[in-house]
Amino acid sequence: MLARIKFLTSGESHGRGLLGIIDGLPAGLEIDEDYIRIQLARRQMGYGRGGRMKIEKDHAEIWSGVRHGKTLGSPIGLLVHNRDWENWTKKMSVEPIEDKIKKVTLPRPGHADLVGVQKYGFDDIRNVLERSSARETTMRVALGSVCRKLLEETGINICSRVTKIHDVEDETPLPSKLKTKEINKVADESPVRCLNSDVEKDMIKVISQAKESGDSVGGVFEVIATGLPYGLGSYTQWDRKLHARISALMLSINAFKGIEIGGGFVGSAKFGSEVHDEIGWNGNSYIRHSNNAGGIEGGMSNGQPIVLSLAMKPIPTLIKPLKSVDIHSKKEKDAHKERTDSCAVPAASVVAESMLCFAIADTMLEKFGGDSIEQLVSHLEVSGKY
Amino acid sequence: MLARIKFLTSGESHGRGLLGIIDGLPAGLEIDEDYIRIQLARRQMGYGRGGRMKIEKDHAEIWSGVRHGKTLGSPIGLLVHNRDWENWTKKMSVEPIEDKIKKVTLPRPGHADLVGVQKYGFDDIRNVLERSSARETTMRVALGSVCRKLLEETGINICSRVTKIHDVEDETPLPSKLKTKEINKVADESPVRCLNSDVEKDMIKVISQAKESGDSVGGVFEVIATGLPYGLGSYTQWDRKLHARISALMLSINAFKGIEIGGGFVGSAKFGSEVHDEIGWNGNSYIRHSNNAGGIEGGMSNGQPIVLSLAMKPIPTLIKPLKSVDIHSKKEKDAHKERTDSCAVPAASVVAESMLCFAIADTMLEKFGGDSIEQLVSHLEVSGKY
Amino acid sequence: MLARIKFLTSGESHGRGLLGIIDGLPAGLEIDEDYIRIQLARRQMGYGRGGRMKIEKDHAEIWSGVRHGKTLGSPIGLLVHNRDWENWTKKMSVEPIEDKIKKVTLPRPGHADLVGVQKYGFDDIRNVLERSSARETTMRVALGSVCRKLLEETGINICSRVTKIHDVEDETPLPSKLKTKEINKVADESPVRCLNSDVEKDMIKVISQAKESGDSVGGVFEVIATGLPYGLGSYTQWDRKLHARISALMLSINAFKGIEIGGGFVGSAKFGSEVHDEIGWNGNSYIRHSNNAGGIEGGMSNGQPIVLSLAMKPIPTLIKPLKSVDIHSKKEKDAHKERTDSCAVPAASVVAESMLCFAIADTMLEKFGGDSIEQLVSHLEVSGKY
Amino acid sequence: MLARIKFLTSGESHGRGLLGIIDGLPAGLEIDEDYIRIQLARRQMGYGRGGRMKIEKDHAEIWSGVRHGKTLGSPIGLLVHNRDWENWTKKMSVEPIEDKIKKVTLPRPGHADLVGVQKYGFDDIRNVLERSSARETTMRVALGSVCRKLLEETGINICSRVTKIHDVEDETPLPSKLKTKEINKVADESPVRCLNSDVEKDMIKVISQAKESGDSVGGVFEVIATGLPYGLGSYTQWDRKLHARISALMLSINAFKGIEIGGGFVGSAKFGSEVHDEIGWNGNSYIRHSNNAGGIEGGMSNGQPIVLSLAMKPIPTLIKPLKSVDIHSKKEKDAHKERTDSCAVPAASVVAESMLCFAIADTMLEKFGGDSIEQLVSHLEVSGKY
Repeated sequence: MLARIKFLTSGESHGRGLLGIIDGLPAGLEIDEDYIRIQLARRQMGYGRGGRMKIEKDHAEIWSGVRHGKTLGSPIGLLVHNRDWENWTKKMSVEPIEDKIKKVTLPRPGHADLVGVQKYGFDDIRNVLERSSARETTMRVALGSVCRKLLEETGINICSRVTKIHDVEDETPLPSKLKTKEINKVADESPVRCLNSDVEKDMIKVISQAKESGDSVGGVFEVIATGLPYGLGSYTQWDRKLHARISALMLSINAFKGIEIGGGFVGSAKFGSEVHDEIGWNGNSYIRHSNNAGGIEGGMSNGQPIVLSLAMKPIPTLIKPLKSVDIHSKKEKDAHKERTDSCAVPAASVVAESMLCFAIADTMLEKFGGDSIEQLVSHLEVSGKY
Repeated sequence: MLARIKFLTSGESHGRGLLGIIDGLPAGLEIDEDYIRIQLARRQMGYGRGGRMKIEKDHAEIWSGVRHGKTLGSPIGLLVHNRDWENWTKKMSVEPIEDKIKKVTLPRPGHADLVGVQKYGFDDIRNVLERSSARETTMRVALGSVCRKLLEETGINICSRVTKIHDVEDETPLPSKLKTKEINKVADESPVRCLNSDVEKDMIKVISQAKESGDSVGGVFEVIATGLPYGLGSYTQWDRKLHARISALMLSINAFKGIEIGGGFVGSAKFGSEVHDEIGWNGNSYIRHSNNAGGIEGGMSNGQPIVLSLAMKPIPTLIKPLKSVDIHSKKEKDAHKERTDSCAVPAASVVAESMLCFAIADTMLEKFGGDSIEQLVSHLEVSGKY
Repeated sequence: MLARIKFLTSGESHGRGLLGIIDGLPAGLEIDEDYIRIQLARRQMGYGRGGRMKIEKDHAEIWSGVRHGKTLGSPIGLLVHNRDWENWTKKMSVEPIEDKIKKVTLPRPGHADLVGVQKYGFDDIRNVLERSSARETTMRVALGSVCRKLLEETGINICSRVTKIHDVEDETPLPSKLKTKEINKVADESPVRCLNSDVEKDMIKVISQAKESGDSVGGVFEVIATGLPYGLGSYTQWDRKLHARISALMLSINAFKGIEIGGGFVGSAKFGSEVHDEIGWNGNSYIRHSNNAGGIEGGMSNGQPIVLSLAMKPIPTLIKPLKSVDIHSKKEKDAHKERTDSCAVPAASVVAESMLCFAIADTMLEKFGGDSIEQLVSHLEVSGKY
Repeated sequence: MLARIKFLTSGESHGRGLLGIIDGLPAGLEIDEDYIRIQLARRQMGYGRGGRMKIEKDHAEIWSGVRHGKTLGSPIGLLVHNRDWENWTKKMSVEPIEDKIKKVTLPRPGHADLVGVQKYGFDDIRNVLERSSARETTMRVALGSVCRKLLEETGINICSRVTKIHDVEDETPLPSKLKTKEINKVADESPVRCLNSDVEKDMIKVISQAKESGDSVGGVFEVIATGLPYGLGSYTQWDRKLHARISALMLSINAFKGIEIGGGFVGSAKFGSEVHDEIGWNGNSYIRHSNNAGGIEGGMSNGQPIVLSLAMKPIPTLIKPLKSVDIHSKKEKDAHKERTDSCAVPAASVVAESMLCFAIADTMLEKFGGDSIEQLVSHLEVSGKY
């Protein structure tokens, strides 16, 4: 799906740490560990998160691809140490160990646990849950933040806000003049990334209630990109459509069970005459008076903000566990419990921002080329952004 | 995204025809033009479709990759002639022509028209609309039907039904014992692919009203796959997740603006304890009493039916056109009109079935390998389907 | 390996014909069937070719992606009819047939025959040989010629010449001021694509001798590209190296058993001080006094001509057949005979030119981007070719 | 090109170290750091290597993807520390630094230096040479050794031997009954990986002479794989050919300027009747009395050993430097000198073994599937290796 960018992550949740490599970015882009750290911190915020977030305080070391503050055009390698590694050296040892380690045998409904052990032929669910854990998204945010920096250099910004936690919905529409930085400023200060402080309280309340009853809640959030040129992606072949690429990246997060572009499901219940964004001319450029398309027409960015809505299911690890079956004895028992959050929606919206960064950075490079950030910008100027 | 299957389509809506090539399928699979024709006919059904459907009566010629009724393992090439080509030889001539052809200069809101001419530097919107047209999905259905045949040979079946046209919703839940063939049998006989004959009437009514007022409607439909082995796709890397691959294929249809896996947006408003599918044991195998996950946990098929919901926007070509701007004069005018349907939701659900066929066939081959259908089946037997 | 271009071919040697689709090229490129025909004709020339070449007179119909003489940015679909199809309708019928068709059961050493039937589980070698035939390269030349046209628009030209047939070698070095068009002009007029008319005679003689004795001969040829910008490809990751991409494309021709870039095997026997191309400055730009690197340093084009040498094995179908084993009876017998050439080296060098066209066009688009040929050229001007 | 395996490396030669991730391997494969260390040590051997080899003593830490001695099916992440990092913290600092660092401004002919700075817009050649260095192949060997282990589990072994250093050639043919382990045992004990101890002495002599005169030498080596099933790769589409995939991987090593499969260039000067490997039957299976095809017919493994020959150019960094031009002053000067080997052919042959491991492991998984090593083996047993 991606044309110029390739990225891989590796690492188990309680292993030594996470490794990530991103390849295909231009040279000359200014980037440093502090810039990445801010994005990692944004991912760690949010009301309703368990104890682990305090241990984590994630920091990504730049191991390669950057010299004296600028990218080299060579692949960028990042490394995030597991700060709790010392407590896991035996359980997660790379080498065989003599000690007997207690196996996890009670698969959690809603998780990769049961299918994972069946697929790979394991007798210990830990072999699955360590990689299928949301911990991996830390590295995606770290890698995605390099793409975010590239986008900023070309005037593209990405933000997000939570619109629903469980059944508490913030129905405030997005401001018509979207200012991504301001949205993120407000959202970052809210423990639930909600722009409306009244609704925020109710969101916090529903998370607290879930936590108290050993339960978990999901929700919905929006991801928005502004400052886009027209023509990213194409209608010409299935795998060049911008929304196909974005969806693949977004739905690659296990917990995401739905995506809408612009009007989405609600828009599908409107008449064509209501929903399509009429075209005008302001003397200099084409204008629209609405954005029901969510910034994408015909599989291409149309210059309007990209607006996506994502549905995240409740976290499947529960303090009040669901019914399960022991994979060895086949006896029905309660599912395995791991340390858990009761709500990860605010964090997830930051992860989703990162996934959008990959998609847009890749289509920018595909359309405009460029081996250095200067070249990318000069091609953008020649070919015209709007 | 796809591991073993590659496919490309080409062809403009009013050109000579459509070409399609699918590569990577095993040898020995029985397939014929009649089998494909049935799927193409299913795509052409549906109340609310315009005049063109009568001209089309699509037929895909198998040009290559099949001999004496069986696939050769070599790429399968298909060709669909445009039966109306004689009326378009000048307008769509490959060679330069002397005659002056009227250019299309009024972009339709909601279509690729405006961005397309900007992106590619055209002065005639026809250069865009001919390829961005939904006509291309004919070839996707044709190619996808070869994958569908492969899936049938391994006991996997795929069906769909429309659940909503505009604001008319069929709230009947899917039967708990899903019989895909029966669902498709009923849906195929309904002009709106609705399983409930009462709701069907209201759906037809709302389409008729839209047609009369020169407007268009969208809707929602479900796509379902049954008979799946566990473990298609994987949680190990972003682009191996089954739902990421499915979403990319689905959202590669321009008109689709949303997708839900299982509970989707509604599920995100439930508690974890309500929504995750508890695990039981029936003496022989693991069982579930619900399927809110929509058959996918941790980016893998879990053996339950895959259930997806898709939102389709109303068709952007309107008899009662929207406001637009002439791309040459920059004057505000009504948008271009092409012959058009007022509702294509039933057809779209058949297209979506095809996209699911690609995703599942590819992950089957990735997991089980096999150069011939016999080998695929024998690997499936050795490794266990359930 | 390819970043922006995708292409697939399909078609059996004696089926209805060949289909090809190339995706990812910019809009606005002038192309017509005559341009492609010239390249197909160049592929059909050559002393020592069998009777089929007379039947073939290949012509590729442009079915899609081109309108009024210019590319649309949408995928280009080509179709080459098999002019001998009427004699093969039963043997190569897509549908099952009642008549008994004689099976090919004697695998030819050096061909895909034996492994092919083993791999795919066939009982008729025709199921293999029809696709593994060099006939498929017709479509590659057709598709590659569209890339060739794109390169010409940016001042890049590609030519080839035969340097060896069997043991007859043309040791004339390439002229230091390479003029690709002149080289191709002379080579095209030679029945063996040899630039030296004395050696040409000996080459023809050795082919004649092979033909008379029912044998076949191979050879060596050079493929050359000039007018290249520096910096196509990159050293940053294995699959971005220009020579890796070129080699994959070249060695995807079954009969090619070796490739050299620049000095190749001979260069590996020289001292570092002899073989590396010293760098000078002419007041305006960097210069080199030699080109032992063959135009590629560090996996990137260095602005000098790309010079490749390819080894082609003798055609494996022999009139005087080799020993083989009947795949049914397991009895030792003579291998199957098909109508055959005794030497295809000149044709192969034209096929190889096409493969180089794909590689260079793709890396040009990767580096410079562009949705139309004008944009590609304007980016090239801004970023500097030399 | 690769169907199931993906791998990326990152890291500069004198940076903190190298990172590598390989994705797509099955679970249950036994692997440990010692196994990898042996392969890294093999890469570091060889007469004619400079001082750095003594510092390096490479060790790859397994950071992820392996637990208690077995692979998890999740991506394997490796890390190789630069043991000399403390001496490079300023020169290679990720952060901007206050100190002025001397820039490298004299590009070495034959290296990525000149094109690299032009392409990426650098004013310091160090930004290029750090990544284009052969140091990166350390990580390729480390990652490739995991594939090697997978192959061993299925009875496939890979070895190499040097056949030529500069003009000193070992013309001893490979033994007809190829025993890869024995070949590697002898080769590993030779400082030049030569199987013939007489020729070995001359090879050492020519390296010594080059070293004394500040020059460098290249050479030729063979890479061999045995125990292969038939049918890896396919003739059906260009990018499925086994030798195309192998060539791409091999020629992704900058210094490799040529590859031959089986007979290669010499074979192209033989008659078809001499060169193709006749087919026999031994009562149980097909046999061949020769292997001029080098184990690949029609783009597929034919069950015979794969035999490849690679040409490596002399190292471009010379103590007695070549003429160059200062990239700032444009004045002609001697090229930059880095610490250097005078011959790296023996090491390169170990790197090439690793590249073959990737290609064969990937096509094995493509053909046989399998999520665990047990499944892979069981599919192999069902479908038949020979």
